Amino acid sequence: MGDTGQRAAVEDAGRRDFLKGALLAGGTVATAALGATSALSQPGPVPGTTNHYHVPATDKTVHWGYFSKLLKPLVEVNSGDFVTIETLTHHANDDAERMVKGDPGAESVYYWDKQRKGVDRRGAGPMQPTLFGRGAGEGLGVHICTGPVAVRGAAPGDILEVRIIDVKPRPCANPQYKGRAFGSNAAAWWGFHYKDLLTDPKPREVITIYEIDATGERNWAKGVYNFQWTPQTDPFGVVHKIIDYPGVPVDHATVKENHGILKNVRIPVRPHFGVMGLAPSEADIVDSIPPHWVGGNIDDWRIGKGATMYYPVAVPGALLSAGDPHAAQGDSELCGTAIECSLTGTFQLVLHKKDTLAGSALSGLEYPLLETQDEWVLHGFSYPKYLAELGPQAQSDIYSKSSVDLALRDAFRKMRHFLMTTRGLSEDEAVSLMSIAVDFGVTQVVDGNWGVHAIIKKNLFAGTP
Amino acid sequence: MGDTGQRAAVEDAGRRDFLKGALLAGGTVATAALGATSALSQPGPVPGTTNHYHVPATDKTVHWGYFSKLLKPLVEVNSGDFVTIETLTHHANDDAERMVKGDPGAESVYYWDKQRKGVDRRGAGPMQPTLFGRGAGEGLGVHICTGPVAVRGAAPGDILEVRIIDVKPRPCANPQYKGRAFGSNAAAWWGFHYKDLLTDPKPREVITIYEIDATGERNWAKGVYNFQWTPQTDPFGVVHKIIDYPGVPVDHATVKENHGILKNVRIPVRPHFGVMGLAPSEADIVDSIPPHWVGGNIDDWRIGKGATMYYPVAVPGALLSAGDPHAAQGDSELCGTAIECSLTGTFQLVLHKKDTLAGSALSGLEYPLLETQDEWVLHGFSYPKYLAELGPQAQSDIYSKSSVDLALRDAFRKMRHFLMTTRGLSEDEAVSLMSIAVDFGVTQVVDGNWGVHAIIKKNLFAGTP
Repeated sequence: MGDTGQRAAVEDAGRRDFLKGALLAGGTVATAALGATSALSQPGPVPGTTNHYHVPATDKTVHWGYFSKLLKPLVEVNSGDFVTIETLTHHANDDAERMVKGDPGAESVYYWDKQRKGVDRRGAGPMQPTLFGRGAGEGLGVHICTGPVAVRGAAPGDILEVRIIDVKPRPCANPQYKGRAFGSNAAAWWGFHYKDLLTDPKPREVITIYEIDATGERNWAKGVYNFQWTPQTDPFGVVHKIIDYPGVPVDHATVKENHGILKNVRIPVRPHFGVMGLAPSEADIVDSIPPHWVGGNIDDWRIGKGATMYYPVAVPGALLSAGDPHAAQGDSELCGTAIECSLTGTFQLVLHKKDTLAGSALSGLEYPLLETQDEWVLHGFSYPKYLAELGPQAQSDIYSKSSVDLALRDAFRKMRHFLMTTRGLSEDEAVSLMSIAVDFGVTQVVDGNWGVHAIIKKNLFAGTP
Repeated sequence: MGDTGQRAAVEDAGRRDFLKGALLAGGTVATAALGATSALSQPGPVPGTTNHYHVPATDKTVHWGYFSKLLKPLVEVNSGDFVTIETLTHHANDDAERMVKGDPGAESVYYWDKQRKGVDRRGAGPMQPTLFGRGAGEGLGVHICTGPVAVRGAAPGDILEVRIIDVKPRPCANPQYKGRAFGSNAAAWWGFHYKDLLTDPKPREVITIYEIDATGERNWAKGVYNFQWTPQTDPFGVVHKIIDYPGVPVDHATVKENHGILKNVRIPVRPHFGVMGLAPSEADIVDSIPPHWVGGNIDDWRIGKGATMYYPVAVPGALLSAGDPHAAQGDSELCGTAIECSLTGTFQLVLHKKDTLAGSALSGLEYPLLETQDEWVLHGFSYPKYLAELGPQAQSDIYSKSSVDLALRDAFRKMRHFLMTTRGLSEDEAVSLMSIAVDFGVTQVVDGNWGVHAIIKKNLFAGTP
């Protein structure tokens, strides 16, 4: 991977000690180093064929708030291998009793006392928080990402196919809430609604805790309680008047829990990964918030069980990470977050080498593409390659330049390219077809680089001989 | 209706001669005055209960390119009555052989020789085309609308419920194409793609003709041919270099038809009415293109068979009209139009008086609301009440002020209002629920006043006791 020296930039900065022994490669299933999840159901390995790896979520296996091509992979897999990746929500400390307590993996990641944090760097900002004084990494990027997983032989120009075989909620480890799982929704300052509230006090940030059935019997979530964010003092003594740094433990003695909310409302669950993608090539350390052409924080709820993602590979080994797990989200993620809820996913990784792509649906793919049983979903962004497009200040400028209109423009161009290259349509055929049979929706308006997705149903081409 | 004197403004201007005798009210089904459609299947009337009216599409029953509270209703119905309304696409003259010829209703509407047009006014502009020289009404508004239908007792503040009982394609009347129906898609200068083309010549407008199975056996449409728009000289001698006036007959000797397009592509049909709505109160004559708070050109493909629309009533009698029929459209209507295809709809009209609305889902409704079996769909616009918001030049200014971002803002506010008023949620509950369970999509970006819709599934509330 050629990471000697390079990775120092990331690793020196934090306290990263990459897990080595706990991840077993080749024919056996590695179990969670810290025993975070106890009841994994895994297919048996077939020696000599595909392998199945397990990547737990611990302070040693996550990178918090950023992607980096300099990170040493936790494991290197072959094309065709399976990997189970545990992911933790970065909102678990909104209610540590329900989402951290008793869970060794989560406890190791969230560990924070006066002396140290389990994971110090949170975000792509400076380790000395000279910009805003929030903390290491400055919260310029918020998602706990597990990874990266390297794919043997992957090189820039290839496509990595990620088949989402299974997605399971991470059960609450606190015996008080046995059989349940929980998530948090933050209606936060970066939400679309924030400066447009009707009722007092204005503005305000509100956390809503949701309960999900960890057994999978129930396909809906329900509200448990909500509270208004109050200034929270972190263990290092920094006061967070707003939600400006991820993982700040909420002291529930300082907030007023309103129970009995959303009475009788059943929220259909749509478990998916808000963040999944490959390491970008343009910068050494990249804020996890804005989605980019090799994936990341796309926040499309369709990226769930049964779906397949295709990502362009930008760096050797591809370097796949996953995080920002969601139990449910609507198109737009309007208030800033989904039901942020720890999940474990099982994936099969298939590498498509550049020289095999000609004439396939992956030819010329320069964006994250989603395939479901019935649909292709193309992801447009305000700035599809913002790191290259916006220059040296791209990672801050992106937050002031996005619009849905720009993202729609990008989604249009991508769908036209898809129809012309993969279906051999003329531009006139493609443009007409888009207007009569492609649905454009608002993916998210809260991730700096706003998103619009374009959905085309596969049965349009069912008549192909 | 108090239209004496007032309606002169509209009627003097055109050649309108409202159909009186051909529409029979009360207990019997009126048949098309000009025999436009021959095989209507209608339920038998039950004397003394509800009635079923039939409104054919002829030069006497349509208003082309505008809504007006000054129009005399074609028929006045009671709440609960049924009405079958024939609608004609304003793109039929893109291929008159397939969409006009042999159809007496369409021929009467499209009639145009050196001396006269069957329907002179097309659009809300001046009758003497002093602005652009395009023709009477200047094409400031393009849709052929059938109506209006008045509802007895309807008054401002009430809500008109329109249940879409049935939607049928209008069969081609040219024996050469028996059993088929046709539609036209124009990738036109007002499309989102127009200034963003890859291939030459740039820019260009392209018409694509689609075939629909009029028998209803096939649930997909297919492309027949396309052609690039060439300057067309109308019978009055005006040259239309671009598609700047509706209903200009295309001389097929001047265009090159490309057959064999979209080979093996099957476009799922979604028959619906692009335009349906009530007469606005703010102006006497209103361009049919920008959608407004009492409906109009919403261009949501979900407004089809089985769906129900709720419109706020702005003028006495409500004054419902329908037009802009579509065989299929995608969310965004990207290139400017759908598959524009004449349809006949059967509707039941139910009036909800203002004083009965408190506590219901219609309480405080100030926008067009769609209900399907599984969903509520709220329609947001860049300027929800643009006629009032944008001042005296509203009807021209709206074309330069729209954005998807603004329409999303409006859709957010409407969904919040809906959840707070009809479900009794607090603002915090509503905002959280929107982020995790409401899907926002791009309705259209081609109608001056751009639209975003918000979809909430009814089963969220299935737990209500």
